[in-house]
Amino acid sequence: MKRVYLDYAAAAPMDPRVKREILKYIDVFGNASSIHASGREAKEIINKSKERIGRVLHCRPEELVMTGSGTEANNLAIFGILPQDGHIISTNIEHHSVLRPLQKRGNVTFVPVKPNGIVDPKDIAKAIRPDTVLVSVIYANNEIGTIQPIKEIAKKIENWKLEIHGKPPAFHVDSCQAAGYLNINVQELGVDLMTINGSKIYGPKGVGALFVRRGTKLAPQILGGDQERGFRAGTQNPALIAGFVKALEIANSMREKESARLEKLRDWFISQIPEVKLNGDPILRLPNNINISFDNIDGEMLMFRLDLHGIEVSTGAACTVSSNEPSHVLKAIVALPVTPSHPSPYNKGKVQEGVSAGNIRITLGRSTTKKDIEKTLEILKREVNRQRFNRK
Amino acid sequence: MKRVYLDYAAAAPMDPRVKREILKYIDVFGNASSIHASGREAKEIINKSKERIGRVLHCRPEELVMTGSGTEANNLAIFGILPQDGHIISTNIEHHSVLRPLQKRGNVTFVPVKPNGIVDPKDIAKAIRPDTVLVSVIYANNEIGTIQPIKEIAKKIENWKLEIHGKPPAFHVDSCQAAGYLNINVQELGVDLMTINGSKIYGPKGVGALFVRRGTKLAPQILGGDQERGFRAGTQNPALIAGFVKALEIANSMREKESARLEKLRDWFISQIPEVKLNGDPILRLPNNINISFDNIDGEMLMFRLDLHGIEVSTGAACTVSSNEPSHVLKAIVALPVTPSHPSPYNKGKVQEGVSAGNIRITLGRSTTKKDIEKTLEILKREVNRQRFNRK
Repeated sequence: MKRVYLDYAAAAPMDPRVKREILKYIDVFGNASSIHASGREAKEIINKSKERIGRVLHCRPEELVMTGSGTEANNLAIFGILPQDGHIISTNIEHHSVLRPLQKRGNVTFVPVKPNGIVDPKDIAKAIRPDTVLVSVIYANNEIGTIQPIKEIAKKIENWKLEIHGKPPAFHVDSCQAAGYLNINVQELGVDLMTINGSKIYGPKGVGALFVRRGTKLAPQILGGDQERGFRAGTQNPALIAGFVKALEIANSMREKESARLEKLRDWFISQIPEVKLNGDPILRLPNNINISFDNIDGEMLMFRLDLHGIEVSTGAACTVSSNEPSHVLKAIVALPVTPSHPSPYNKGKVQEGVSAGNIRITLGRSTTKKDIEKTLEILKREVNRQRFNRK
Repeated sequence: MKRVYLDYAAAAPMDPRVKREILKYIDVFGNASSIHASGREAKEIINKSKERIGRVLHCRPEELVMTGSGTEANNLAIFGILPQDGHIISTNIEHHSVLRPLQKRGNVTFVPVKPNGIVDPKDIAKAIRPDTVLVSVIYANNEIGTIQPIKEIAKKIENWKLEIHGKPPAFHVDSCQAAGYLNINVQELGVDLMTINGSKIYGPKGVGALFVRRGTKLAPQILGGDQERGFRAGTQNPALIAGFVKALEIANSMREKESARLEKLRDWFISQIPEVKLNGDPILRLPNNINISFDNIDGEMLMFRLDLHGIEVSTGAACTVSSNEPSHVLKAIVALPVTPSHPSPYNKGKVQEGVSAGNIRITLGRSTTKKDIEKTLEILKREVNRQRFNRK
C-alpha cells in the first residue's frame, strides 16, 4: 500500500539535496572548539553555515545561536531574556515550547486571539508595560496555520518606544512552521529574536537556530564550554548544521511557487468536504494547513482509521498528542462553517465543544499531489459517514 | 602531509559501522511523537535504541533521557535535581558543563582532589549534609584523565544513608570521557544519574543521554512537547540516536583490548620524553591520556608548532580553549616529575606555576599507531628544544 503522508507540520522528509549536503560533511569529525587543523575545518563549516543563514534571514552570522531544536531555541528566548523578572506578553495559541516555559517563568500576559485565530496588534500594544521585556508571538500556528501580523506588531512595539521614550521590549517570533512559506527577513519583519529549525523545512531533526539581534540581552541556558559565543554550550555537529542551512536555502528559493501550488490544493480540498468546519482564518493561514472539525465525530478515531488506509494525518500538535488534553489552540478560536463558495469571509461561528467536534489536521507538502488529495477525500468522507452511521 | 590526530578527548572520528547505522535510518523522517505509521517507525527506532543502551548500562529503557549533547545531559542533572535549593557536592576538577551550572546554581561544596587528581571518597562523605541532594563527580577527567573511585564514593553515600537513616543524595557521574574505556554498568557502580555522549566514543556529535534511576526526582529543563516522558522536549533524530547506540555498543565490546593496547603506547610515550612532568596519577588515568608539562615552555605555542607539522594535540579542554584562562584542573593538582623508571609511584611535586610550565594534552585513539607516537615524540622534542634555545 502506497502511503499518503499529510502530516508535514509534524515532520517533513529530508530533501535529497539536504541529505547530500550532510553526507558531504559527515566525516568531518574535529571539535569546532579545537584550534588545530581538524578543529578549524569543523569551525569553518559552522561559520560558513551561519553566513548562509544570515543571507536568508538578513542578519549577521554572529547574531545566530545554533541549538539542538526549535524547542530549545524557543526555551532560550523565553528563559534567557533579561532581566529575568521582567514582564512578558504572548498569545493564547503559542506552541508548547513557548507556552510551557512562559507558564513556568510567570509574569506573563497572554493576549487572546480573535475567533479566527489571529491576534490584534492593538491588543498586544495595550498590554505593553514599562517592565515588559519580551513579546513572543508564533509566526504561523502549528495546529491551525494562522499567520500573525508580525510586521504590524513590530511597529506597535516600535511606536510604544517612541511614545514612552522607554526601552521597548524585545520581540521574539517562533518561525518553525513559517520558515517554509513566509518572509523570514528579520529586518523587514522588525523582530529581535527568531526561532527556526530543520525538521519542518525538509532538513534534519536535532538542529535549530535562534536569531538574537545585537544588543538583545540574553542569558545562556545550557552552560559549559564557550561554543556559540557562550550562548549555548555543547559540541556542535557541523554536518547537521550544514544540512539545516541547505534546507533553509531551498525552502527560501521555492517558497513562493510552492505556496501558490499548495494553496490551490488546500482550498480545493476544503471546498470538497460537506458539513465541515474550518479552524482558523481561511485566508491568513499557511498554504499547506487544513485543520477541520466535524460535529459528532471522534477525531482521534478518524485519524486511526485514515492511518489504517495508509493516510497519515494528525489531530493536532504531534509533540503533545500523548497528553489527551483538549488543544489550547482550538479552545481559543471559533470554528468556521465552510460554505460551497469557499473561501468565504470569516463569519462568527459556534465555539468548539470538546470531543463532540472531532478535528483533524491535514498538512500538505512538496510530495503532495492532486491524486493524494482525491484519495484522502474519498476515504475521509467514507470514514466520517461510517462513524455517523455507527452512532445511530 | 599525513596528519597525526592525537586529540581523541576532544572528538573522535565516527566509526564506519556507526556511519552505516546512521545511513540506515537517515531517511526515517516521521516525528516520533506522531501516532501514525511514519511516527511509530521513528518511535520504534528510539525505543529499540534505548533498550540497547539499557543492555550496556544495565538499566531500564525508560530510565534514559536522550539529549542533544553530554553538556545538556550534565546541565539537566545539575539544574534539574530536586529540591532546587538542596545542597550539592562536587569536586574541583569537573568539566565546565558541570562546573558552570554548579556555579550558577550555588549551594555547592567543591571537594578538592588530592595532588594526583583523585578525590578521596572519605572527603566526599564528610561533606554530606542532611540537605545534600546530589553528589556529582566526573568519572574520568577530560584534561588529565584521572579516574575517580566511583564505586567507593557510591558506597560512602550508601553508608551515610544507613548511618543517618535519612534520604541519601543522588549520585551523578559524568562518564563522557570514561564510556570508551571504563565499566559503565550503573548497577555495579551504584550511581543514580549518569551522562554519556556520542562524540567521544566514535559516535555522532549532537546526541547524548542521561541515565536517571527510577525514583530520582528531576525537573525537566527544556520544556515543550512530551518527548522523553516529559524530561526533555524537542523532536528527536532517530538516525543520530541509533548511531550513538551503535558507537556505545562497539566501545563497550572493544573496551578491554583497546585499553590494554593504548596503555602500553601511553606509558612508552611518557617514558621517552626527558624533563617532563606528568599531570595526574600515572596509574589511575585513562589509557589514552597523556597530559604533560614542560618547565619554561609556552604550551599554546608548542601546540601551534605541532599543528604546523601535522600533529594535532590540545592544551586542555577544547570547549573553553578560547577563554585563555588557566585551567582549573591543572591548578587543582601537582605535576609529577617523570623518572626513567616510569610508571613510577606518585611523588609529591611542585605546584604548577601558570605559563612557566607549558602543558599539552595528547589523547590517543583507535587509529593511533606506534609510528604516530614515534613521529610525535621526535617533533615534540625538537620543538621543546627549539623554544628553549630561542629563549636563551
